[in-house]
Amino acid sequence: MPVIGVAQRRLEGGAKVTGAARFTADLQLVGLAHARLVLSPHAAARVVRVDLEAARRAPGVLAAVSGADLPDLGLAGPEQPLARERVFYAGQPVAAVVAETEAQAADAAALVEIDYEPLPAVIDPFEAMREGAPRVLEEVGGGPEDAGAHGLSAAGEVSGERPANVTARVHFQRGEVEAALTRCHAVVRRRYVMPAVHQGFMEPHVTVARSEPDGGLTIWTPTQGAFLTRRTVAGQLQMPVSRVRVIPMTVGGGFGGKVCLIEPLAALLARLADRPVRLELSRSEEFAMGRGGPGCVVDLELGADREGGLVALRAHAVFDGGAGSSGLGGLAGIMLGGTYRVPNYEITALDVATNKTPVTAYRAPGAPQAFFALESAMDELAADLGLDPIAFRLRNASREGDPRPDGQSWPRIGLVECLEAARRHPLYTAPRAEDEGVGVAVGGWGGGREPAAAGCRVEPDGSLLVQVGSIDITGTDTGLAMIAAETFGVPLDRVKVERGDTATAPYAGMAGGSKIIYTVGPAVQQAAAEARRQLLEIAAEELEAAVEDLEIADGRVRVRGAPGRGREIGELAELGAQFMGRYAPVQGQGRAVITAQSPMFTVHVARVRVDRETGEWRLVGYAAIQDVGRALNPPEVEGQVHGGSVQGLGRALGEELVWDGDGHLRTASFLDYGLPSIDQVPDIQVQLVEVPSPYGPFGAKGVGEPPAVPGPAAVTNAVAAACGRRISELPVDFEALARQGI
Amino acid sequence: MPVIGVAQRRLEGGAKVTGAARFTADLQLVGLAHARLVLSPHAAARVVRVDLEAARRAPGVLAAVSGADLPDLGLAGPEQPLARERVFYAGQPVAAVVAETEAQAADAAALVEIDYEPLPAVIDPFEAMREGAPRVLEEVGGGPEDAGAHGLSAAGEVSGERPANVTARVHFQRGEVEAALTRCHAVVRRRYVMPAVHQGFMEPHVTVARSEPDGGLTIWTPTQGAFLTRRTVAGQLQMPVSRVRVIPMTVGGGFGGKVCLIEPLAALLARLADRPVRLELSRSEEFAMGRGGPGCVVDLELGADREGGLVALRAHAVFDGGAGSSGLGGLAGIMLGGTYRVPNYEITALDVATNKTPVTAYRAPGAPQAFFALESAMDELAADLGLDPIAFRLRNASREGDPRPDGQSWPRIGLVECLEAARRHPLYTAPRAEDEGVGVAVGGWGGGREPAAAGCRVEPDGSLLVQVGSIDITGTDTGLAMIAAETFGVPLDRVKVERGDTATAPYAGMAGGSKIIYTVGPAVQQAAAEARRQLLEIAAEELEAAVEDLEIADGRVRVRGAPGRGREIGELAELGAQFMGRYAPVQGQGRAVITAQSPMFTVHVARVRVDRETGEWRLVGYAAIQDVGRALNPPEVEGQVHGGSVQGLGRALGEELVWDGDGHLRTASFLDYGLPSIDQVPDIQVQLVEVPSPYGPFGAKGVGEPPAVPGPAAVTNAVAAACGRRISELPVDFEALARQGI
Repeated sequence: MPVIGVAQRRLEGGAKVTGAARFTADLQLVGLAHARLVLSPHAAARVVRVDLEAARRAPGVLAAVSGADLPDLGLAGPEQPLARERVFYAGQPVAAVVAETEAQAADAAALVEIDYEPLPAVIDPFEAMREGAPRVLEEVGGGPEDAGAHGLSAAGEVSGERPANVTARVHFQRGEVEAALTRCHAVVRRRYVMPAVHQGFMEPHVTVARSEPDGGLTIWTPTQGAFLTRRTVAGQLQMPVSRVRVIPMTVGGGFGGKVCLIEPLAALLARLADRPVRLELSRSEEFAMGRGGPGCVVDLELGADREGGLVALRAHAVFDGGAGSSGLGGLAGIMLGGTYRVPNYEITALDVATNKTPVTAYRAPGAPQAFFALESAMDELAADLGLDPIAFRLRNASREGDPRPDGQSWPRIGLVECLEAARRHPLYTAPRAEDEGVGVAVGGWGGGREPAAAGCRVEPDGSLLVQVGSIDITGTDTGLAMIAAETFGVPLDRVKVERGDTATAPYAGMAGGSKIIYTVGPAVQQAAAEARRQLLEIAAEELEAAVEDLEIADGRVRVRGAPGRGREIGELAELGAQFMGRYAPVQGQGRAVITAQSPMFTVHVARVRVDRETGEWRLVGYAAIQDVGRALNPPEVEGQVHGGSVQGLGRALGEELVWDGDGHLRTASFLDYGLPSIDQVPDIQVQLVEVPSPYGPFGAKGVGEPPAVPGPAAVTNAVAAACGRRISELPVDFEALARQGI
Repeated sequence: MPVIGVAQRRLEGGAKVTGAARFTADLQLVGLAHARLVLSPHAAARVVRVDLEAARRAPGVLAAVSGADLPDLGLAGPEQPLARERVFYAGQPVAAVVAETEAQAADAAALVEIDYEPLPAVIDPFEAMREGAPRVLEEVGGGPEDAGAHGLSAAGEVSGERPANVTARVHFQRGEVEAALTRCHAVVRRRYVMPAVHQGFMEPHVTVARSEPDGGLTIWTPTQGAFLTRRTVAGQLQMPVSRVRVIPMTVGGGFGGKVCLIEPLAALLARLADRPVRLELSRSEEFAMGRGGPGCVVDLELGADREGGLVALRAHAVFDGGAGSSGLGGLAGIMLGGTYRVPNYEITALDVATNKTPVTAYRAPGAPQAFFALESAMDELAADLGLDPIAFRLRNASREGDPRPDGQSWPRIGLVECLEAARRHPLYTAPRAEDEGVGVAVGGWGGGREPAAAGCRVEPDGSLLVQVGSIDITGTDTGLAMIAAETFGVPLDRVKVERGDTATAPYAGMAGGSKIIYTVGPAVQQAAAEARRQLLEIAAEELEAAVEDLEIADGRVRVRGAPGRGREIGELAELGAQFMGRYAPVQGQGRAVITAQSPMFTVHVARVRVDRETGEWRLVGYAAIQDVGRALNPPEVEGQVHGGSVQGLGRALGEELVWDGDGHLRTASFLDYGLPSIDQVPDIQVQLVEVPSPYGPFGAKGVGEPPAVPGPAAVTNAVAAACGRRISELPVDFEALARQGI
């Protein structure tokens, strides 16, 4: 009975849907105290005075502190756990109160008096680049700690003189763009604008920290990366990593935004108050200081010859890093210049600092921005050339061996296969009513790589215990268990996955970069194979047979051809886990490192219906076609694609973080921030394409990020097809569309 | 800088002496409820009626149950978590109440009304063996679940007809004893009586159990064996072991008595109350239902020829198993017949059931009983023959290759070396005042064996994380850390030991049988060596050098002869634990199995001063000489020997569980139970002998159990030497001695 490729129920699904799963906010510790923050209302200001006296005298208060009460961690200004002297964005934490109860902490926080001296703030990234613009950051900081873990690339980075507030600049060039553009039969020139968004997870940031009697720290947190959080906390607090224990809790939504944010501050407060401390952001605090994905403006010129061959691309991307840096330029550049064969290109990407909340990773960071521009332009160009948009893409699509802007060349990828599947897809081929349009868009993602270890123990009840250090935000535990089950030869219900904490779990990277199955999977596969070998060696001795003659079936190890000659798996395992046992414990270990990517591509097809009178329109059909290498657990993979598609669509349908001219966030609640609602999202047809990876377990590639990429362009391309109106600024403004008439 | 053999501070010592260590009773869980038991006041009775109504109506009560409310687990009567129909000893739990607070639980427990119909009880084991004696047990049960784990042997067990209430009979025979005894020049014939004792740990049994939403169980408990507790709970509750998670907590004293006792009951109560439940025994409950070491009566005949060569031994030992079985006969037999070369012997050992608290393991179970008899007789025989007691022992001591009653032969042992050291010891050689006597006694222990796995990870801060599943009750974590430090090449302060729980920790047997260093040590050694190899392979590539040319020193891997060419350990390890890393994580694994024993021997020397007028006497000097193979951490090994010596002396000085004729325990508090006080214990001089084990890490043997063995005979032999009066019943009754006159 194969396990891989067969639909399996998610191992942790039951606990989640019944409410049995334990989240960080459910955690009770002896003496648990509660922290509440005071955030800056100013986008840029000097902190003149922080008066904590009233707060300190309030009932139940254990500590009330400002940045001056905390050690200077030598971090860039906006990265200090509490502001020191200056604030860099509205929402930056300036003071914190720890009290016996949440209500007492909130009451006391309201008593903190802070005097600010407002400074000129820069909100718009283009304003920020003007000569003489106020300097946002005190020093040019690096990208967020976890940028790399998402598969971001430092490729193309350029040093040298930069405009004001530009924290990073990336440049890729090939051929002669200017000359090539003039030769083109058709050129599309347009500015594409994608606003900043928030991951919109259900569970806001929440952390419990406890300072241990030996000076060490224990942190319970819903992180996507336990080891990365450990490293960040230890690094910021200048402690050896082995003094910090991170206990990863169930994650109530992450999408790149739940790695390490409030953990160092919670740890410092726990130390100061000498109590375990819970710090939980309210929803509006989450919007104001939780970090989303950056807004981006791409100026793109794309030209082709008469036959539909791409000739030249010029792109200038500006990522708004808020009071930090996005670090996304290199990645965006690779996607802009590498998805299609373009003999001439020049790509520049800038990270610009503004007085807004710093950004971090959000599902396929940088890719929605790059592909919105690229795929909108591809679509418009196909229309200009009178070509079928899929045929046009197929003609130009990169294939194995084609060069990428970062100097690497593409391995075997499934872009062509996805395009071909899209061309045959009923949503694409079905007749279109007069008011309907169909749009197509490509998306892609390179994928992260990271070494990982895993363990696989055979229990005396015949079950397998798979030990990993990775976090399950997408059903990966189930996938890893399936890998172990298939490799070892037991049904899935005989496998359990354990992760422990950073001191007991094997090393794994964060759940990001669509890499858990791809990188931890091979370690689990090794560990299960090793456990199997160990068990068979015991069986060989006990059954007086050669290892080669043994098989595992129906929970037993038996001699091939003599099924009566066998022993239960658990019985054999117990021989290595009992007093006076003659065999070593059956405990397999895997240590894996994959250094090659298996890049993932996807094609989305959107069908919209537009009322040409009113501008009213809606999505009537949606298909997501994705190369996943091998779908280990098909419904789960489909579910991932489904969820990612909805998140991508959100950027078209209404998601947008809006700051006013003074840098105040105007969308700090779910009333104001337009997460897509279920009535806006059509049935999504997921079609999986399987171009196996030579590296991933059983051929699997990453899954999670690509589906969040093409949605906006697929939708706007469909709108253009339906009514001829090209939308290049997101989210699609329905009312403006209607007002302007079509 | 060597680590092994050099004095090291105990890793967990600081937390224990400052009160920072977290014990089970410190644990707070959300919704934690408290259980209280109702124990039987009768040694044997039928349970006629259990009225729980009043208890159930009491404030805060969540559940009140009797045995009838629990599932019948198919266990022997006294082993059911709550009595079903019958009780078998006074102290057996009959009902339990779970309430919101401890006080409410206690109040409600007092409202439980139980009607008993008393049955005839058998308290004395010799009465129990009489024909027609009431049958104590419903069926003849096996020994306690954990008996095996202490190194107990099933050798010599005899089947067939047995006297009433005899649950096990062991028989060893060699040569012709009757004829040989008649040929002897001198024969000692005596009955030696050692009472039952309790381990007397500071922390009574306490457990927290929680039933998980998926039907699994989590148990926090101060157990000596996490995996053994898991197996026992799962077995009794008829669950797969993988559904039970045991989280081992700091043990507040174990000595063999803290493995698994109240855990299954706590788990059942947690399920019934649907709340996490803490069950903690009061001190008097601990004495009444906590299980100690069995009382034992040995009738011994020992004869020698004129030259001092042993000729014959006949022994008949009766272990009082209470309402269970001790399983100690085989072991006692091996020690009685194997310590010295005796050409003719006949040894019988019986386990007899009585209506008293069942017994379990207590530090070197069976050995104090056997050696008290053997060493008293050896001493008396030497005196009868006019021989020096050490010379007499040396003449007869078993050596490598000598046969043992169980059919095995002794490997290289250190008995002769210990005796020779004792002969040279100042306490033995110094002049003796007229009122002084010096006594000598031998003790020994075979030692447990069990497979074990371990992990060793190198952290990015250059420290080692050693992952084990063993419990530290004696400083073994420090020893294991030293093994890793020495093997890898870092100082001890760079090593941390982690154990996690039964789902995250590598397998290890219980801390019993003096076997943690002996069996887990080799796994740690392997794991550290493997981690070192992995790190050196990374270094070889990074430093462009051959692995053979590398060394680890001062926290760096460097090229031999070119100390400037090197990298920090942590920096190299991080290359296998970071995004885009090219190397697999540095994670060594060890899987060890030692099937051979390295038996341990010890010789204690006691010097007493006796006032011949009043009978008043005291210990004025004490020496413990022990072969430990190799002392990894000398002061810690000495501390172990010291503590064990005191526990052994306790049996001479006053420890005794006393039941009255109706089976009521008369010593159920520390006022009544005579633990030795500090003024009774002299300075103990520990001398370590090192006859290396070929198997243990760095030559180490077990340490913990032998020192608890020879004390009683050493003391009584010294008393005999001082005043000519031979004491063969323990504890030494000072007042009786004085009363009878000397």
